[in-house]
Amino acid sequence: MTALSPHPDRLLPADPGTRDVARRLYGEVAGAPILSPHGHVDARVLLDDERFPDPAALFITPDHYVTRLLHALGVTYEELELGKDARERDGRKIWRTFCRHWDAFLGTPVRFWLESELAEVFGIDEQPSEASADRLYDELEARLSEPGFRPRALFDRFGIEVLATTDDPADDLAAHLALREDPTFRGRVVPTFRADRYLTPGTPAWAPALAALAEASGIDTGTYAGLLDALRSRRAFFQAAGGTATDTGVLAADATPLSDTASERIHLAGLAGEVSEAEASAYRANLLYRFAEMSVDDGLVMQLHAGVHRNTHRPTLERFGPDTGHDLPAVGGYTQPLAPLLRDFGTAPGFHLVLFTVDETLFSREIAPLAGFYPSVFAGAPWWFLDSPAAIARYRAAVTDSAGFAKTSGFIDDTRAFCSIPARHDMSRRADAAFLANLVVTHQLTEDDALGVARRLVDEQPRRVFKL
Amino acid sequence: MTALSPHPDRLLPADPGTRDVARRLYGEVAGAPILSPHGHVDARVLLDDERFPDPAALFITPDHYVTRLLHALGVTYEELELGKDARERDGRKIWRTFCRHWDAFLGTPVRFWLESELAEVFGIDEQPSEASADRLYDELEARLSEPGFRPRALFDRFGIEVLATTDDPADDLAAHLALREDPTFRGRVVPTFRADRYLTPGTPAWAPALAALAEASGIDTGTYAGLLDALRSRRAFFQAAGGTATDTGVLAADATPLSDTASERIHLAGLAGEVSEAEASAYRANLLYRFAEMSVDDGLVMQLHAGVHRNTHRPTLERFGPDTGHDLPAVGGYTQPLAPLLRDFGTAPGFHLVLFTVDETLFSREIAPLAGFYPSVFAGAPWWFLDSPAAIARYRAAVTDSAGFAKTSGFIDDTRAFCSIPARHDMSRRADAAFLANLVVTHQLTEDDALGVARRLVDEQPRRVFKL
Amino acid sequence: MTALSPHPDRLLPADPGTRDVARRLYGEVAGAPILSPHGHVDARVLLDDERFPDPAALFITPDHYVTRLLHALGVTYEELELGKDARERDGRKIWRTFCRHWDAFLGTPVRFWLESELAEVFGIDEQPSEASADRLYDELEARLSEPGFRPRALFDRFGIEVLATTDDPADDLAAHLALREDPTFRGRVVPTFRADRYLTPGTPAWAPALAALAEASGIDTGTYAGLLDALRSRRAFFQAAGGTATDTGVLAADATPLSDTASERIHLAGLAGEVSEAEASAYRANLLYRFAEMSVDDGLVMQLHAGVHRNTHRPTLERFGPDTGHDLPAVGGYTQPLAPLLRDFGTAPGFHLVLFTVDETLFSREIAPLAGFYPSVFAGAPWWFLDSPAAIARYRAAVTDSAGFAKTSGFIDDTRAFCSIPARHDMSRRADAAFLANLVVTHQLTEDDALGVARRLVDEQPRRVFKL
Repeated sequence: MTALSPHPDRLLPADPGTRDVARRLYGEVAGAPILSPHGHVDARVLLDDERFPDPAALFITPDHYVTRLLHALGVTYEELELGKDARERDGRKIWRTFCRHWDAFLGTPVRFWLESELAEVFGIDEQPSEASADRLYDELEARLSEPGFRPRALFDRFGIEVLATTDDPADDLAAHLALREDPTFRGRVVPTFRADRYLTPGTPAWAPALAALAEASGIDTGTYAGLLDALRSRRAFFQAAGGTATDTGVLAADATPLSDTASERIHLAGLAGEVSEAEASAYRANLLYRFAEMSVDDGLVMQLHAGVHRNTHRPTLERFGPDTGHDLPAVGGYTQPLAPLLRDFGTAPGFHLVLFTVDETLFSREIAPLAGFYPSVFAGAPWWFLDSPAAIARYRAAVTDSAGFAKTSGFIDDTRAFCSIPARHDMSRRADAAFLANLVVTHQLTEDDALGVARRLVDEQPRRVFKL
Repeated sequence: MTALSPHPDRLLPADPGTRDVARRLYGEVAGAPILSPHGHVDARVLLDDERFPDPAALFITPDHYVTRLLHALGVTYEELELGKDARERDGRKIWRTFCRHWDAFLGTPVRFWLESELAEVFGIDEQPSEASADRLYDELEARLSEPGFRPRALFDRFGIEVLATTDDPADDLAAHLALREDPTFRGRVVPTFRADRYLTPGTPAWAPALAALAEASGIDTGTYAGLLDALRSRRAFFQAAGGTATDTGVLAADATPLSDTASERIHLAGLAGEVSEAEASAYRANLLYRFAEMSVDDGLVMQLHAGVHRNTHRPTLERFGPDTGHDLPAVGGYTQPLAPLLRDFGTAPGFHLVLFTVDETLFSREIAPLAGFYPSVFAGAPWWFLDSPAAIARYRAAVTDSAGFAKTSGFIDDTRAFCSIPARHDMSRRADAAFLANLVVTHQLTEDDALGVARRLVDEQPRRVFKL
Repeated sequence: MTALSPHPDRLLPADPGTRDVARRLYGEVAGAPILSPHGHVDARVLLDDERFPDPAALFITPDHYVTRLLHALGVTYEELELGKDARERDGRKIWRTFCRHWDAFLGTPVRFWLESELAEVFGIDEQPSEASADRLYDELEARLSEPGFRPRALFDRFGIEVLATTDDPADDLAAHLALREDPTFRGRVVPTFRADRYLTPGTPAWAPALAALAEASGIDTGTYAGLLDALRSRRAFFQAAGGTATDTGVLAADATPLSDTASERIHLAGLAGEVSEAEASAYRANLLYRFAEMSVDDGLVMQLHAGVHRNTHRPTLERFGPDTGHDLPAVGGYTQPLAPLLRDFGTAPGFHLVLFTVDETLFSREIAPLAGFYPSVFAGAPWWFLDSPAAIARYRAAVTDSAGFAKTSGFIDDTRAFCSIPARHDMSRRADAAFLANLVVTHQLTEDDALGVARRLVDEQPRRVFKL
């Protein structure tokens, strides 16, 4: 048996003097409330407060970070039963496969999160392995049956103050509204407005999405003008339900406005199934511009997650669906494609635009320089393929020079895995403490200043950037 | 009150053993004379030797590093009175605003430079803050009135041996010539030939620039052949005035030659206001090639600062002019666009080409490989958005493998802020000492070799590269 | 005299605690057998087992790492006698030039390799210098005459278990076959199938290559179908001779399949000398796709070395030939250009595709994300301009997060310089020990796990990836 006992100093620097400083900095923020301004947990989980499913369904099957690395080692998605309905899966068998390949995660952030979760949330004290698989499964099953491991109990135990979900504009936000009116739940769960489905005329999802939005808003979306009205109306609805932000995911960040006439023409062509790819791109770029315009008007923070090729392996998509590990980073770019948007709204009072990337060359070349001039622009925390301690260190080193700390977003967990939230925030707090400690011992920052920065990064910064 | 006392070990590595080595390396070069082969101080400042204006006009309003970060935090340029004539500004009010936002600079190189300047040049012993703003302003005002804080006195005190300015070919270099003939000034101030205005037919500045150049050179610039003659004549004039180098700033580094006929045709089209963008680009690329040809002939070092989008925020440009913080890095490239130039001049005896970038991906992929083959090519010091200790470390780590130390340019301060010159060189010396010390303690370099490299980087290297 | 005594702790981390761990990790693998699955040593060297030529011909003239840096400092290739026939060169004169410029290599990996070779292979105890040049030359000459310094003796002494060469499909592999049948040689030398010459119709080398391949295979290569058959036949021949892998070098990694009809048409156009550049590119992209298809069929590992501009300085090429230091890195890309290949073969059982790059932005953005999903894809070790300790550290930091250790290729020396093989593997082992030690002291990995990883990286990993 190999003990599972995450070290209290993990991720803090090796040099003893630097580590001492880092310990003090980390100690100051380790227990701070969690502000999670962007993620993918379903509000219904907290509304229903049902016990989590079995360990495989909690830790493995829905988490593409985990499944993609197993897949890369030759474990097929059939073996992980991804193609099956959740209720038909053999959780114990999947869990055993995972435990057998536990070494695959050595050196990865996934291992850090899982170790922290298993040890600190579930009290597991042994590493997963072929030998320990069954015992661990049983232990976890036992825990999951306890009331203290229900979503709401964990929400409290994790110290989550705000949790943002991600939602379609046509969503009725029923779970959010119910939670707000539930006197037994004191947490704050807020929706985020994500209108990706409405961006690209000609895609199969577009026309049905327009129909759903018309239904939800009571506004005819058969015209471009109607779509804008409907979106505005739903943004107001999201704000009334506690939302403070929008999010948009696109491959390219082009934000060139079109005339209303041209937009209207493409909208109608889209409904008639006669839109070219160039027209669809122009339409999408215009909508990105309009989203900024709307944010200037209504104050919703605009998040931009650009530069991901989605669903690149068609055979896997067709058999196992989206979010199964084959989304891949693209060459990114913000400075040029966002130029029209920034020209018109970059200095608009109250406008907040948070830029994320999976292409780390953008940190020093585009995002920090933009955030270091435009009052509206903030450098989003390292995202997805860049959410490891090493990448966080590169991000801070690349961004701080031109943008300081005050123009960074604070940590974003961006996760579907509710139980990994504290581990993810903890990783970020440790990584930032390590970065700041190094500035202290090289006399670039006093320890007092570093303490102030560390505190602001987990509190004032996300509150201000996301208007929480 | 928070003390301002830059630590003697700042920027040196945290590990005690490495720090000891770094201290010795830094100690060896800390007091070496300053060679500044590229910058933007006006020679007239030293000729006239008048007292510097008030603290705001010295530290804040002309420094886009400072103003852009304040702007990014929501301090408007109106508040900083950038739109006003210098004599109408309320320096104390601007200074107070700056002090109130002193925390914005935490972790940035701007903070390092300002702390060093305030403490080591002006003897300030308290951090800027809302509370200390007025006292600091008064202290600085008092210093600035003293004779020891006039430009020439500071030039001596800073230990500047050579200071290069940046000048238009049509400039009469009156200040340079007067300084050379002034027996009371023993410093060396040399002009740098920067012909950017002449590159792009069709831009509003082009025809007036040609006229000014014709006036200055006495050569008709109404033809392309005339322009080349005039440029050659002015290069000789700059050389006679002590110049050793040229500089060119372009967005893309294309250097494809055109036939004289084609160039002549575009030149005339430019004067007639009938030049297309493609023609203007071809003309510019040809001139870049011709500049290299001229450098091969006359021996002037060719510097290339490529890859910056200038004046990207039009509303700010229109209201506050250029150099107000919205120049932004572009995706860079040297290997492909410079290919024709390097084919013809890359191995020409005596030709020196110094390549700078704000896209750090070029360090290991383009600049170091080029400098590691072509005798003419040198890797320019990290520039602008990359002039921090962290970026200097990345530069050395990325460039040294393929190009060693002997093909790097030595430090370039590239500043308009005269009083920041010693702080900038000091940062570089500390950062290089830190880098070298790490090579020593990991036994990649003996300490003796490291001492030799440290000395060469501040002395032999810039002298040789820039032919000082 | 300056002693040459490579430190036993070189490249291990400076921090004493981390160094202790690194020493133990390195100690575990320092003496492990060398598996060299990709390189450019000629099998004939081992078959003939003749003494190596003089020191200049061993260390300098054939090594473009060495000659390019000397060239960059102004030592002409005439001075290094690169243009001359090997037998007409004045080895001692060339050696003296090299020794005089020994400082050029300070801080570069070339210095590390040469120091290790000179000290540990040849027992030299003094640094090269103008003063020591002749004595060192004589000492090396004496060593080279000893039987213990013949290729086979060194092969044994270096502990090489497998050495892969790189060979044209038309090669008769006579040396390989003879070595396999030679009872006095117990080493394993295997060929690698590299069909670059057959990729691009219209290049001067293409038609003669087809003719040679027809001759070697006995299959008519006058048609596209014939070429595929001939390649398949030679792949089988290489496999029978011990080969386990292919390699392909291209500028761009496009792998879009063509119909057989279209391929056939371009093939014939190529033979008729009437192929356009676009057709040649399409043909090449199709062949890359077909190479993957063949690897799926026959199990040969597919290596891809993309993104190098070859022979960029035409005057040097014309006078001194290829491999003379002016190959330069290009902007790389794998995710998009390989998409069709990965769609069809990315999850094919047994298919192995090892991706190398000289553009390090690909590590975190493309290679690690691909290797972290596709069971077939492995992240090739840092290549060429990126084969230094600093770049190895960046590679590990960038790749491990998304791909772990199990999807990396293990070290590749990729060298023509036989005597540098142990130094290159030693550098990699030290660099990996340093990286792992840092994970241990920051509690991201237990020391036991790190030991396991260190061992796997030099043994199981290359065996598995390259099917050795």
